[in-house]
Amino acid sequence: MGSKSDLLPRPLRGIIPPMVTPLLERDSLDVVGLERLIEYILAGGVHGLFILGTTGEAPSLSYRLRFELIERVCAQVNRRVPVLVGITDTSFVESVNIARKASDAGAQAVVLAPPYYFPAGQAELLEYLKHLTAELPLPLFLYNMPRYTKAIFEPETVRAALDINGIVGLKDSSGDMMYFHRLQSLLKDHPDFTLLMGPEELLAEAIFLGAHGGVCGGANLLPQLYVDLYNAARCLDLSAAGALHSRVMQISTTIYSVGRYESSFLKGLKCALSCLGICSDFLAEPFHRFRAAERDTIRRHLEELGITPAR
Amino acid sequence: MGSKSDLLPRPLRGIIPPMVTPLLERDSLDVVGLERLIEYILAGGVHGLFILGTTGEAPSLSYRLRFELIERVCAQVNRRVPVLVGITDTSFVESVNIARKASDAGAQAVVLAPPYYFPAGQAELLEYLKHLTAELPLPLFLYNMPRYTKAIFEPETVRAALDINGIVGLKDSSGDMMYFHRLQSLLKDHPDFTLLMGPEELLAEAIFLGAHGGVCGGANLLPQLYVDLYNAARCLDLSAAGALHSRVMQISTTIYSVGRYESSFLKGLKCALSCLGICSDFLAEPFHRFRAAERDTIRRHLEELGITPAR
Amino acid sequence: MGSKSDLLPRPLRGIIPPMVTPLLERDSLDVVGLERLIEYILAGGVHGLFILGTTGEAPSLSYRLRFELIERVCAQVNRRVPVLVGITDTSFVESVNIARKASDAGAQAVVLAPPYYFPAGQAELLEYLKHLTAELPLPLFLYNMPRYTKAIFEPETVRAALDINGIVGLKDSSGDMMYFHRLQSLLKDHPDFTLLMGPEELLAEAIFLGAHGGVCGGANLLPQLYVDLYNAARCLDLSAAGALHSRVMQISTTIYSVGRYESSFLKGLKCALSCLGICSDFLAEPFHRFRAAERDTIRRHLEELGITPAR
Amino acid sequence: MGSKSDLLPRPLRGIIPPMVTPLLERDSLDVVGLERLIEYILAGGVHGLFILGTTGEAPSLSYRLRFELIERVCAQVNRRVPVLVGITDTSFVESVNIARKASDAGAQAVVLAPPYYFPAGQAELLEYLKHLTAELPLPLFLYNMPRYTKAIFEPETVRAALDINGIVGLKDSSGDMMYFHRLQSLLKDHPDFTLLMGPEELLAEAIFLGAHGGVCGGANLLPQLYVDLYNAARCLDLSAAGALHSRVMQISTTIYSVGRYESSFLKGLKCALSCLGICSDFLAEPFHRFRAAERDTIRRHLEELGITPAR
Repeated sequence: MGSKSDLLPRPLRGIIPPMVTPLLERDSLDVVGLERLIEYILAGGVHGLFILGTTGEAPSLSYRLRFELIERVCAQVNRRVPVLVGITDTSFVESVNIARKASDAGAQAVVLAPPYYFPAGQAELLEYLKHLTAELPLPLFLYNMPRYTKAIFEPETVRAALDINGIVGLKDSSGDMMYFHRLQSLLKDHPDFTLLMGPEELLAEAIFLGAHGGVCGGANLLPQLYVDLYNAARCLDLSAAGALHSRVMQISTTIYSVGRYESSFLKGLKCALSCLGICSDFLAEPFHRFRAAERDTIRRHLEELGITPAR
Repeated sequence: MGSKSDLLPRPLRGIIPPMVTPLLERDSLDVVGLERLIEYILAGGVHGLFILGTTGEAPSLSYRLRFELIERVCAQVNRRVPVLVGITDTSFVESVNIARKASDAGAQAVVLAPPYYFPAGQAELLEYLKHLTAELPLPLFLYNMPRYTKAIFEPETVRAALDINGIVGLKDSSGDMMYFHRLQSLLKDHPDFTLLMGPEELLAEAIFLGAHGGVCGGANLLPQLYVDLYNAARCLDLSAAGALHSRVMQISTTIYSVGRYESSFLKGLKCALSCLGICSDFLAEPFHRFRAAERDTIRRHLEELGITPAR
Repeated sequence: MGSKSDLLPRPLRGIIPPMVTPLLERDSLDVVGLERLIEYILAGGVHGLFILGTTGEAPSLSYRLRFELIERVCAQVNRRVPVLVGITDTSFVESVNIARKASDAGAQAVVLAPPYYFPAGQAELLEYLKHLTAELPLPLFLYNMPRYTKAIFEPETVRAALDINGIVGLKDSSGDMMYFHRLQSLLKDHPDFTLLMGPEELLAEAIFLGAHGGVCGGANLLPQLYVDLYNAARCLDLSAAGALHSRVMQISTTIYSVGRYESSFLKGLKCALSCLGICSDFLAEPFHRFRAAERDTIRRHLEELGITPAR
Repeated sequence: MGSKSDLLPRPLRGIIPPMVTPLLERDSLDVVGLERLIEYILAGGVHGLFILGTTGEAPSLSYRLRFELIERVCAQVNRRVPVLVGITDTSFVESVNIARKASDAGAQAVVLAPPYYFPAGQAELLEYLKHLTAELPLPLFLYNMPRYTKAIFEPETVRAALDINGIVGLKDSSGDMMYFHRLQSLLKDHPDFTLLMGPEELLAEAIFLGAHGGVCGGANLLPQLYVDLYNAARCLDLSAAGALHSRVMQISTTIYSVGRYESSFLKGLKCALSCLGICSDFLAEPFHRFRAAERDTIRRHLEELGITPAR
């Protein structure tokens, strides 16, 4: 029988959706919605599943609920695709705790952004990674999310991290393509190290220029669209990729752009999934689900996009 | 028999040091150092003790260790001064968990900065406060720390929070005196609402112009200096206050300014306490204690300041 | 006969209002309003006049108009108080050109913020100052305005600038009192070097703790209020200072806070001067004067403040 | 005989290098170097020339020198390609002055970033554009450079600007591809409106997804490389484009990355041109040319890139 990371290709290619966390209340999973959502996403042909990321509202959830989620998702996915689990935390000890839980539950890898209360320097980050990987039972993906963590893994730090045993890839959600291209230059001679794009608006060009895949939030809603875009871009079919990219941009400028707060992406995504009957739109504090007016706007945008509830 | 908040004056006046958390290792308290530190601080005549704030490295600590700290501190202080406990967290549920622990252990109040991963809008923050206070067993102080939390309680939000039952004060660590003066204008007719200054470099002027006290990190090291400055400023003795303020500035530009990272304040403070034989200088990840060269510099600064180990 | 800088005390103490530039149109001075404004301000007992600063909209004005303004102001003031002229520019050569014009017209000093398009490093700024002062015919005040220039004169740079011949003071508009206190520590042994506070909300505490004066925008509107506050604070009359500071805060939270843009300070100030019949409220692009609704609000705030047009 | 803008295609396609300004001293053009540089660039097959942009150090130059440059460049280019002239200024009046000079000298268009001292709101920016274009004798390109101007033309503002007569295109130097893609979505039905990419590291993907060309600083040094990349990307030859893009990245991570300041791009570019014997490496304040050690590094990088002085 294989080990837990047998399932994890090196590099990991394709679309690995950052799953939203369906909630009934602040500390209660929408269990039925969760099962439906997992099956809906997997049916789209995705190449992995990433839970407890930013889109999954991980920092807003209790540890109890995070542990329940890990168990339920791993059981439901049942090794059909690799499951990646976010362990980002301000506390080293709690990151390790989550990673152990993930390993016990059968996940294939863990994902870590820098600790996000105190802004660490690059030397401190590198030392942090060395200490942490020594305690981790699963391979680690680095995760750049400077908007929320105030820190980025600078190219020189990524270069040094290549020598740390257990670090197998990086997901970049900085939205900074110049940084991304610098990473690509850096990783030219490390074909096994996975480089994944966060913002779906940048997926096409990332794949054209060599990235391995994308962690696209929109793949909660339209998994196949992102798989198709990944495939078109990987085959260098610029014409198909351009058309699919336009559709991605349409989602971005409609579904994700309702309301005036930074959280509109998350609220729009959960609201759309709720309109489609997939799962609840409850959000953990400090956020709140869209009210009726915004929900109507989302419903209208879904219609314009030709997305309708499955019958 | 009095309730837990009997001990909490309204407003709370004076110096309430944000205690450092003495650690032997990443998940292990320096129990002996903790007892020594508490007695050392209380001997300086402070008016309260604030644990699990930024200076206390709360976000870097496991919940297990935070709970142990709450119990030990409340037991040791034993109602000699009010104990305030930081419950800032990205997860609403975990904030409530810590607050309950604090209440059970005998603390007098809790302190909350905005959830710090997702940046919340002001309307979201206000709703957050309404939901949270309904669940809290202790009075709440708001805590502005925009550098680390990406959000500030805007004056209009503070005005609205005055109507929320259970919110009794605010600690401002923004370092923005213009904001602080706006709050003072706003609170003119709310004499029971406590307004505390965070950065000790701004303590004198805050007290001159009406603040109730300060949450001075340096009061871990020299509690009496800050108590003296508070008293001089409160009595409008500008000459004495000026001299004491100069000493505070000397600490700020020496002990807190060694090394090149933002964390130099925390590292310098813990290093100085260790040089004085009070407690360990171990820091939780992502930080690390000063090495020999920086420790020598701290030791030299302590000598220049005339601070020497008690015999 | 005395030289142009005979009029300039070392240090320069008191209130030096940053004069607004009365305009009839984008490239046309309100000459009558200008004369009235100068006499109105001087009648308040101020200790100097600073033209072509941020409040004077200098960067928005043509060089032709700036030159006309320098000549008219110097002629009108006629050595009653020192005139300081802003020479901040992205072009070294143009800064020197304005300084020469100021010297020829009879001004006493020039004021320079860092060049504000390209953000210079501290070593570059220091070299800039060395090159520039060699070309300047008048003493120079440094001007911190990081919000608009993206650069601040760091304490170490100010320390090095003390050795540059011709640099006589610094005006800090950063609003950062911790920085200001660091400068004060640094300048302890340089009693001739003038340290001035920009934001009027911070004037009282700056004077308490040793600053020489303030460059208060509100002194266009109520020159005597700021002179009184300066005097109360200098005499350590905390009670009088507190009351005058409250009035300053009332202006700040009313007159300067109408409208939603950063420019509300400038618009409110010019609008109020216009309501009082002192000068035109025209603003140079990219700004525009308040419309009727906002003007009514300003008028109401003036009434609440008990400020009415002179008869 | 045709008007000045006959030469300006709609849209303008291809590589339009932002020319560096060869200087002998702070206020003195390197006239011989300038002629050599123009011919060197034009020989590379570029499609236009943009002077007095950020790379041209425009804000650091005196108006006298800017006017001299405009005249010399227009005379030398002599209508072989369109000349675009930067008129970005904090003063509306001075922007118009430069535009008139450009028109008189025979330039084809002008380029404007937002006024960069006072940060304008979007409504203010739009009104600014309406007022300004009414005074301009040449077609206008908008120029996004938020890092230096603190303002960006938001998508809604660009949409509104489409209705202003005389605005013909936009150059985006934000480096934010998500913003760029939003603009592309917006401009789908305006095929005559030119959309140009600033950062050369993003040229390939911008062209793949529909942009008309690039304003590549590196085209001062290797004009043909960028023309080749433009052509490969336009023909959707991803394989050739990928190889050329790698070479662009190599330049970016070597020549532009020497030294520790933000200005390393500009210093590296001028130093490389000087090493190749094309023009002087003098920089206007606040910057300074590289010293010997950094110059040796640049020379080494040029050798690694296989770029050697023409014989």
